[in-house]
Amino acid sequence: MATISLATYIFTRLKQIGVDTVFGVPGDFNLAFLDHIDEVPNLRWAGNANELNAAYAADGYSRIKGFAAICTTFGVGELSATNGIAGAYAEHVGLIHIVGSPTISAEHNKLLLHHTMADGKFDIFNKISRHITLKTAALDDITTAPAIIDDLIRTGYIYKRPVYVEVPSNLGEEQVPAARLNTPIDLSLPPNDPAAEKEFVQEVIDKITKATKPCILVDACAVRHDVKNFVADLVNATKYPVYVTPMGKSAFDEDNERFCGVYVGALSKPDVKESLENSDLILSIGGLLSDYNTGAFTYQYHTTNVVEFHSDYCKVKSAVYQGIQMQAALAKIIKALSGVNLNYVPTPVPASVSEYKQVQKVTSGKITQEFLWRKLSYFLKADDVIVSETGTSSFGILQCHYPAGVTAISQVLWGSIGYALPSSVGAAFAADEISKDKRVILFTGEGSLQLTVQAISDAFRRHLHPYFFVLNNKGYTIEKLIHGLHAEYNNIQTWDHQKLCGVFHDKDDYENYKVSTVQELNKLWSDPEFNKPTKLRLIEIMLDEFDAPKNLIGQAKLSETINSGN
Amino acid sequence: MATISLATYIFTRLKQIGVDTVFGVPGDFNLAFLDHIDEVPNLRWAGNANELNAAYAADGYSRIKGFAAICTTFGVGELSATNGIAGAYAEHVGLIHIVGSPTISAEHNKLLLHHTMADGKFDIFNKISRHITLKTAALDDITTAPAIIDDLIRTGYIYKRPVYVEVPSNLGEEQVPAARLNTPIDLSLPPNDPAAEKEFVQEVIDKITKATKPCILVDACAVRHDVKNFVADLVNATKYPVYVTPMGKSAFDEDNERFCGVYVGALSKPDVKESLENSDLILSIGGLLSDYNTGAFTYQYHTTNVVEFHSDYCKVKSAVYQGIQMQAALAKIIKALSGVNLNYVPTPVPASVSEYKQVQKVTSGKITQEFLWRKLSYFLKADDVIVSETGTSSFGILQCHYPAGVTAISQVLWGSIGYALPSSVGAAFAADEISKDKRVILFTGEGSLQLTVQAISDAFRRHLHPYFFVLNNKGYTIEKLIHGLHAEYNNIQTWDHQKLCGVFHDKDDYENYKVSTVQELNKLWSDPEFNKPTKLRLIEIMLDEFDAPKNLIGQAKLSETINSGN
Repeated sequence: MATISLATYIFTRLKQIGVDTVFGVPGDFNLAFLDHIDEVPNLRWAGNANELNAAYAADGYSRIKGFAAICTTFGVGELSATNGIAGAYAEHVGLIHIVGSPTISAEHNKLLLHHTMADGKFDIFNKISRHITLKTAALDDITTAPAIIDDLIRTGYIYKRPVYVEVPSNLGEEQVPAARLNTPIDLSLPPNDPAAEKEFVQEVIDKITKATKPCILVDACAVRHDVKNFVADLVNATKYPVYVTPMGKSAFDEDNERFCGVYVGALSKPDVKESLENSDLILSIGGLLSDYNTGAFTYQYHTTNVVEFHSDYCKVKSAVYQGIQMQAALAKIIKALSGVNLNYVPTPVPASVSEYKQVQKVTSGKITQEFLWRKLSYFLKADDVIVSETGTSSFGILQCHYPAGVTAISQVLWGSIGYALPSSVGAAFAADEISKDKRVILFTGEGSLQLTVQAISDAFRRHLHPYFFVLNNKGYTIEKLIHGLHAEYNNIQTWDHQKLCGVFHDKDDYENYKVSTVQELNKLWSDPEFNKPTKLRLIEIMLDEFDAPKNLIGQAKLSETINSGN
Repeated sequence: MATISLATYIFTRLKQIGVDTVFGVPGDFNLAFLDHIDEVPNLRWAGNANELNAAYAADGYSRIKGFAAICTTFGVGELSATNGIAGAYAEHVGLIHIVGSPTISAEHNKLLLHHTMADGKFDIFNKISRHITLKTAALDDITTAPAIIDDLIRTGYIYKRPVYVEVPSNLGEEQVPAARLNTPIDLSLPPNDPAAEKEFVQEVIDKITKATKPCILVDACAVRHDVKNFVADLVNATKYPVYVTPMGKSAFDEDNERFCGVYVGALSKPDVKESLENSDLILSIGGLLSDYNTGAFTYQYHTTNVVEFHSDYCKVKSAVYQGIQMQAALAKIIKALSGVNLNYVPTPVPASVSEYKQVQKVTSGKITQEFLWRKLSYFLKADDVIVSETGTSSFGILQCHYPAGVTAISQVLWGSIGYALPSSVGAAFAADEISKDKRVILFTGEGSLQLTVQAISDAFRRHLHPYFFVLNNKGYTIEKLIHGLHAEYNNIQTWDHQKLCGVFHDKDDYENYKVSTVQELNKLWSDPEFNKPTKLRLIEIMLDEFDAPKNLIGQAKLSETINSGN
């Protein structure tokens, strides 16, 4: 076969880099394009109920598999996905947004098509996308299209950001050379400048050699730019204590004897705060210093001896090494460490690291936030995916101890409510492709659930088996704590969550639960059948309206101060 | 009281121009702002389940009341509304999108806040909004804020397009002079240039005087820019035959003896097509010539004698009168006509205008599309609001005969599936404010329903009583007809619609129905209790998967041709 359609070319390229599911919604400008998914073996169409959910699902999928694809239709479809794509951009999540657009001749003739502003302008959606993606393209020439597609996929994949491409409805059908597919897309990072890298590595080794109270602080981009193995090797080589930020949690094995807990500035546990802030050297890996990730900017190091590792630059104190990316630099540092004597003598980790174990003494009573998140440590298993929604869940989850290999998904920076449910469905697609035993566990609030509830239908449609834990605390508790504790606008319409699965699915291959007490939750979580991901499960957990994780209460007070401009 | 908060100022201004409901979703940057809604008597907060639904609802509300307001939070909230705002822009719907943004000091200090890209840039969402609104502003000075607000409201109101404003979370609390509220915002259109207007009016009168086979064609902008009364007066004065386009339907009283039906180019009924296209003068009022509104651009007039009336220009044949707006021009023309003798002798209207009456002979059998839309003519009452979703509903509704005073809402140009349900909820808010007897009747498909289903919850929350007719035809029938008749991607997950209301509401003040036969529907529609809007009602109508209005089948064929570039 000498040629294939451009559509088949694109789908094959995606499959080659590990994308086994394409998210999205059909629309008249992408229908012919979608015909070609079936030509690529083992590539499936998710068929989401709406575009925002498709974008969130693509985001969740990419956080497991490294990349994702979403396909929407021109104007109406793509704009509905905007918030989800912007979130992926903010949080360093790689994906490609493929938009089926009108034909090139329709554009040249400025036809007043539906899904346009009827002003003959066809480029405004592309222009909007430029603000929320790393690169965009509007294909209009079949001869250059394959190279542009390869470049977009490479860019999105290696820099972990969304990219965007418009494929005119007729162009997907045109033929391109098939032979190009024999050469895989180069997904390696560009090498660092050798001289600058060498200088940076030497600076870091010098600092490491001298430090007596050093530490490692692991943040979001260590997960997203996939340097988790380098962090593990670095700890192995140095025995340094390791802290994670809220967004960095799950980047380091919490069973490792050097794990010291979560650092969130002023909202940290006191022993964690004290030990980190008294360090004489901080190796900060993949830092993303947003308000919710830093206890509202309350980092208070007593040292300026900070080395920062990022995906596009590194920094020693105030000296920036522009373009030096952390992956290659960390590899060199780890290698160099083998011939170096360290001054550091390992000290004990903060006692609060094992505080969660106290929960085992609690055997009765109503479920509290404090109980829930600590107890969750015992329900989780190696290699689980845990998705937590912005709000009580994303703050509460920091009290949980993760077993090895857990992947945590939480949109702490972008913080769009409604994100977590569709994201967990996207993660469930990814888990399903990795192992039928791999569990995806969502924690969301019943307020957030309302924004994107039809994502449950998407999970049923493809027979996925995530666990949906819905925390029912009567409204937007996080908002109430920030402002308007008793305001009507922070309430929501009361839903009957026990009937939800029955709407979205007509067979009985799901389970509904409603639990209010410690005994009920303990029984459920210790049930061997419940522990196996063989069905879709929705578990409503009843909580007090104003019960919230302590760190959320602290964050809310700091946020109210920032928002009122004081 | 010498001063009031800026937030109260804004809400009072909205109330003054007839906005009694504010749509939106709370978020941490707009919470303090929302506190002030209660300070304005009889202004209510809708509290939508998500932002896209809030935007669609605002659009539906504005189409009844002339203007609407939606309030979202920075970044995440506003971007979720993008598609809804863009649709309002495309379709000439006036509204203001108020975004609660971070404090001015947070922006100046480039804080890496949540809901940002963590790059210190705070203006990208404003930049995105510029593409889909007529005017945007980011308030940063309390002394100029009231004048900017007044200008935005005036602009959105008189030009019937969305406008956008960012209100920093601390600025809404600052004080402005209350006395400014004593002067209402000037909502009158700028006057036309007298000389140009006079010239245009004379040209039109000349053409009217000479025409022997003239007609009037009424389109979307006649509704949106509110010249329905002028059209009625023009017909009174001339006795010209009146045609409407799909988007113009409901702009003219269909019981009027001069009503001639719907003109959709090649997809018109043959007698309508023939009579309109043989006119020697066409007065086109508020034309919006998109593909779905023109039978895929198949207008085939035999005359070039066309006068176009628009909201921002008028045109006689090829001569454009830039800046001449139709409202004032029509008033002058109608006045001038009183002293003029017309050559026109009224001819009979096309027989197809009363074709719908044949439906009364059908008394049994399965419900077909052909039966449904014609029969609907007898269920509708004066002053009903009828909302039809893009797809079988928006095409089918053209077969229906509207009683006087019906307002029709359909997003024919922008055509975003999922629009109609939340739009009908917005319309239900408006109807509720006008009269408790005013009915809002939605027709949507069960595929479209899935995109925005949580809007049903919004109706329950504020005790509204719309009729939701859900046409169940097993998937996206319009897409199947355009491309992929049996493609899996055009199917959807099967839902149990009878259980939906039970999820969203825990009381029994709603009714569910499922009807499949003519007898069942006739019985329901003739039930006096059912005819009163005293409860929220969801009526599922079972239809054949591939049954579709004839004009949709024709449109789908033309669309497939456009999309494949042939």
